[in-house]
Amino acid sequence: MELDRNLRIGIVGLGLMGGSYAQALSAKGFEVGAIDQREENIGFALERGWIAHGKCEPDPTYIGGFDIVVFALYPRIFVEWIEANQSLFKSGAFITDVTGIKGCVVYRIQKMLRSDIEYIAAHPMAGRESSGIEFADGSIFDDANYIVTPTEANTAKAIATCKALGETLGFKRIVELTPEKHDEMIAFLSQLTHCIAISLMTCRDTTSLAEFTGDSFRDLTRIAKINDRMWSELFELNKEQLLAQMDLFSSAFSALREHIANDETDEIRKVMRLSTSNREAFDKTEA
Amino acid sequence: MELDRNLRIGIVGLGLMGGSYAQALSAKGFEVGAIDQREENIGFALERGWIAHGKCEPDPTYIGGFDIVVFALYPRIFVEWIEANQSLFKSGAFITDVTGIKGCVVYRIQKMLRSDIEYIAAHPMAGRESSGIEFADGSIFDDANYIVTPTEANTAKAIATCKALGETLGFKRIVELTPEKHDEMIAFLSQLTHCIAISLMTCRDTTSLAEFTGDSFRDLTRIAKINDRMWSELFELNKEQLLAQMDLFSSAFSALREHIANDETDEIRKVMRLSTSNREAFDKTEA
Repeated sequence: MELDRNLRIGIVGLGLMGGSYAQALSAKGFEVGAIDQREENIGFALERGWIAHGKCEPDPTYIGGFDIVVFALYPRIFVEWIEANQSLFKSGAFITDVTGIKGCVVYRIQKMLRSDIEYIAAHPMAGRESSGIEFADGSIFDDANYIVTPTEANTAKAIATCKALGETLGFKRIVELTPEKHDEMIAFLSQLTHCIAISLMTCRDTTSLAEFTGDSFRDLTRIAKINDRMWSELFELNKEQLLAQMDLFSSAFSALREHIANDETDEIRKVMRLSTSNREAFDKTEA
Repeated sequence: MELDRNLRIGIVGLGLMGGSYAQALSAKGFEVGAIDQREENIGFALERGWIAHGKCEPDPTYIGGFDIVVFALYPRIFVEWIEANQSLFKSGAFITDVTGIKGCVVYRIQKMLRSDIEYIAAHPMAGRESSGIEFADGSIFDDANYIVTPTEANTAKAIATCKALGETLGFKRIVELTPEKHDEMIAFLSQLTHCIAISLMTCRDTTSLAEFTGDSFRDLTRIAKINDRMWSELFELNKEQLLAQMDLFSSAFSALREHIANDETDEIRKVMRLSTSNREAFDKTEA
């Protein structure tokens, strides 16, 4: 299903993700507007034709003109924005987001939201090592997953609209998960991997090593360049899940350390073979 | 300096690395021969013109015909091969290797070697996720580092010849390190990263997660597909260095875990900023 081209789409927050949404949606022929505190972000998007118009303030008339509003804000600011401005939405508007964690956001917003507005949460699993609209690029969605996390409060129509938005943006795969399953998955696949990369990149002096690094070290630390404001908030808001996944990893790492310390060759090789077959199963999924 | 094209080069062990050496050197116009226990490996390289001739046994006359012999064997087998067959080398022959660890190999071989033969160790820091000559490819050296690890026993001439071999193979950067510095660097940059990837890929059930993985998880686990026989041997032979690097990583990871558990936002952001600037320094070196 493709989205109706007559729907007017507003984006709140023109950072890397908001900017990429604006670019991809305007390229598909939608009239896209935006709200961002920073005049220069609005200007940047206007110049490139990614938005038709924009405002730096939550102007009541302006917000009331959108059929779909996409929130591309940090999680806490997103919740605050809804608290402060939800009276301004057009009746029947559909709102969604790009927030990287769900449980702590979805239920709070659905509970407080006006009954004539529906919020359906989504997580576009795409990104870049650098933040800000100057790095925005609609093509980051091409090879990525788009996760919709509906709750019992959502209607079939809103779920379908949210998925259609993901399709329109060009995502390779669109999947439905509960907010809880989403957060557990994100804790393992994304947050834990960032914790590992950060620890690897800071555990010792590496200045003399740069010239020796091969692909493997560079691959493992690519995500060690991290937006500290956004990620510390994501970690904090998904703390229990993240700590649980960190502990699973630590246990496996410590067990491997003991096998090495005790010259348990058979055990080391067993873990390596399991690792190889687990990773090969991923390649098959990719193909 | 380029190697003299009249030198006859023998390669012992036609796996991924030996095969890639054979391909790259024959493409540069050298007469390359090989010794490998498996007839099919010799046949594979002959068919493709990577070698001019080959033997499955350490034939005395055959070995005596090479000016340079490159050992592309597992470390323990390499040492055993030299012990058993060093009487067969041509007087004045120059031998080198591709072994991924140095301290435990270099001194032992230099100590036992005939005085009219010089062994100078090298580590081509290139590879692939799959082993065996069928994955050999001389182009893996193009963007890689070639580390020469001379000792006091080595002559300037042999060091120059070893570096010239690296240049001929097409390595991007050729560096000299002591065996000890090499092993510490490898423990951190290569062995620790493999331990991390293995642990990440085996610490929990991941079968349901494959469809959600983004680039970061795939990047961190690419090297989780691992040749268990070779890597367990490399880990064992560099055990002390590897355990020390694993412990450095574990300390940093545990400290980050505590910051997250205790909601120490400022500390989390501080580590993230350090991680970002450390990683950016790597990008500068790359450029």
